[in-house]
Amino acid sequence: MSDNILPRGDLTVRTIAMPADTNANGDIFGGWVMAHMDQAGGIAGVERARGRVVTIAVEAMTFIRAMRVGDVLEVYTEVESVGRTSMKIHIEAWAQRFQTQPSRQGDGRDFHLCPHRRRRPPEPIPPI
Amino acid sequence: MSDNILPRGDLTVRTIAMPADTNANGDIFGGWVMAHMDQAGGIAGVERARGRVVTIAVEAMTFIRAMRVGDVLEVYTEVESVGRTSMKIHIEAWAQRFQTQPSRQGDGRDFHLCPHRRRRPPEPIPPI
Amino acid sequence: MSDNILPRGDLTVRTIAMPADTNANGDIFGGWVMAHMDQAGGIAGVERARGRVVTIAVEAMTFIRAMRVGDVLEVYTEVESVGRTSMKIHIEAWAQRFQTQPSRQGDGRDFHLCPHRRRRPPEPIPPI
Amino acid sequence: MSDNILPRGDLTVRTIAMPADTNANGDIFGGWVMAHMDQAGGIAGVERARGRVVTIAVEAMTFIRAMRVGDVLEVYTEVESVGRTSMKIHIEAWAQRFQTQPSRQGDGRDFHLCPHRRRRPPEPIPPI
Amino acid sequence: MSDNILPRGDLTVRTIAMPADTNANGDIFGGWVMAHMDQAGGIAGVERARGRVVTIAVEAMTFIRAMRVGDVLEVYTEVESVGRTSMKIHIEAWAQRFQTQPSRQGDGRDFHLCPHRRRRPPEPIPPI
Amino acid sequence: MSDNILPRGDLTVRTIAMPADTNANGDIFGGWVMAHMDQAGGIAGVERARGRVVTIAVEAMTFIRAMRVGDVLEVYTEVESVGRTSMKIHIEAWAQRFQTQPSRQGDGRDFHLCPHRRRRPPEPIPPI
Repeated sequence: MSDNILPRGDLTVRTIAMPADTNANGDIFGGWVMAHMDQAGGIAGVERARGRVVTIAVEAMTFIRAMRVGDVLEVYTEVESVGRTSMKIHIEAWAQRFQTQPSRQGDGRDFHLCPHRRRRPPEPIPPI
Repeated sequence: MSDNILPRGDLTVRTIAMPADTNANGDIFGGWVMAHMDQAGGIAGVERARGRVVTIAVEAMTFIRAMRVGDVLEVYTEVESVGRTSMKIHIEAWAQRFQTQPSRQGDGRDFHLCPHRRRRPPEPIPPI
Repeated sequence: MSDNILPRGDLTVRTIAMPADTNANGDIFGGWVMAHMDQAGGIAGVERARGRVVTIAVEAMTFIRAMRVGDVLEVYTEVESVGRTSMKIHIEAWAQRFQTQPSRQGDGRDFHLCPHRRRRPPEPIPPI
Repeated sequence: MSDNILPRGDLTVRTIAMPADTNANGDIFGGWVMAHMDQAGGIAGVERARGRVVTIAVEAMTFIRAMRVGDVLEVYTEVESVGRTSMKIHIEAWAQRFQTQPSRQGDGRDFHLCPHRRRRPPEPIPPI
Repeated sequence: MSDNILPRGDLTVRTIAMPADTNANGDIFGGWVMAHMDQAGGIAGVERARGRVVTIAVEAMTFIRAMRVGDVLEVYTEVESVGRTSMKIHIEAWAQRFQTQPSRQGDGRDFHLCPHRRRRPPEPIPPI
Repeated sequence: MSDNILPRGDLTVRTIAMPADTNANGDIFGGWVMAHMDQAGGIAGVERARGRVVTIAVEAMTFIRAMRVGDVLEVYTEVESVGRTSMKIHIEAWAQRFQTQPSRQGDGRDFHLCPHRRRRPPEPIPPI
């Protein structure tokens, strides 16, 4: 993947990788990136569904390169499609390396979310 | 998925969901589960590769039901196949609900990992 | 402050307030907001100084209203002035309430940062 | 303790030590190990008491060697005795060093727990 | 500022800086210090107002030197003045460097707090 | 223990219990208290040994009552005895309940620490 590809969707989460987020390799813990992607999916899902949502499935993720301490993580989201009781959100994570040239792609994939209902059948997603 | 299916692989991570792990819904944050699955993949990968590894891809994940505070998370891993410089690990997350009947399946999917090398070509995985 | 004032500067940090970030009141811990403002100042300072920076002073902060779990925190930064060995960064925190109308202002103030040097005199900030 | 001693009880908590868990020495913070032992005691106590429990006392703990980043912590528990309103749980922590043979070794001691009741007299523990 | 200045007020928070609290520079994250100052202000405010309080403004802060892992942070507070519905608390952070001579001043400034009331007008602070 | 007993030793750690520190019962996680006691032991041990130390054993702990969110935790330490290569530190945890009178009460026990040396025989503790 070339670095001149632009991120797709809206910037939904932006944060910096800290030493507390490293794994035993000294790189940023992959689960930290996944957790922020899930968080971004939740933010985007709530806005579209106008109510709380829950992640029910994640399609494939690819990690192009490891993040390091000081890198800025950017997660972009775009609602891809909306069904009656679930929606599909495209999520991309980008990393901007500390002190170097612009941002480059981390990975891309889709998250499926549905409105959050405890013990009740899922509720329809309202039209825009 | 019926509850009498048994987990596949070895118990690699086991922990309890705490209030600090909840999302705005009051359920356990999905990213917390993903992060523990990635952690389990790392533990299993290190054992097989006899060296540090890094997650390069994750195949689909499904979340059967939301976890709640007090649930015990169990992550099972099984090395599915080993290539020359990467391996595929099957990872399942199970949740045991606080104070109720036995464990039930959360989800299952494969993680791809390769030996960790900074700025060097990937190293072969040693034979068993 | 009216809600139609727009944030000033670039979106530098964006994240969601989780239950783990609450204080004994059940609101979001004020220190959590301050910490993200400092983090945003660091990100903006690094970009401008092209090197690591450290916060040396913070001017007044005002907290218009308490944040709640599920609110999205947005921190905007703008380099206000650059001296020979320090710079002044304007930082604003905005909160978008979960499930309601658009974003509203949290607070605004300036952070002073200088290039990070251990045991050495501060280094000049490079020209743009 | 020789390395061919087997852990006693059931594997109750299993996790990996991360850089965020280190102390100023660069070793794993002893309190992190204690916290996981308490967590394991809580999990085992809930299963036996069929209700929430609280730790009321801890007998002696010994730390054989410091844990390091990347070590896998395993906590084993066994209900030792059950009184009318409290129980005694034997808890052992074992560490598996990153990238080496299954040499593990940790420490052992008993935790006392009783059913959790706010402002009410303790409730009897049900028979098996 | 000379090191023989004594801290002003009561010791309200005392804790040690851990590796998990570092920033990308390897120093202690400035936001971590701010968060503990806010926490100390909350503790002091609750004692004086005899009820929960919320930070509404912070006056200038200065950071004399960066904290390092192993330093002990001490936060001192003193109620400076009490108005009808808000109070002003002077807050100082001191750091004691690991293994060296006594404590030295970090910084000083005032925090403004008012009693915490959701959606209701602020409540008077009771007389002493 | 009656409430007019005074804490023994020096105030070494003081912090407030936050919602992020709760367990599934909604009380403060016992392991959180243990971790702060260990941290306090480390601070006191470093001061006495004039070098880094490591906890090698903990004598019995008792938890008089559960801590709640908003309680202030105070940990007191006193060096009890110093041997050639290890020392014994008495540690007490006290809790001050939010918004009530200074009634505090916690628990007491001894921690054993020795100077920290990787792969080398323990170093003598210097005389005062």
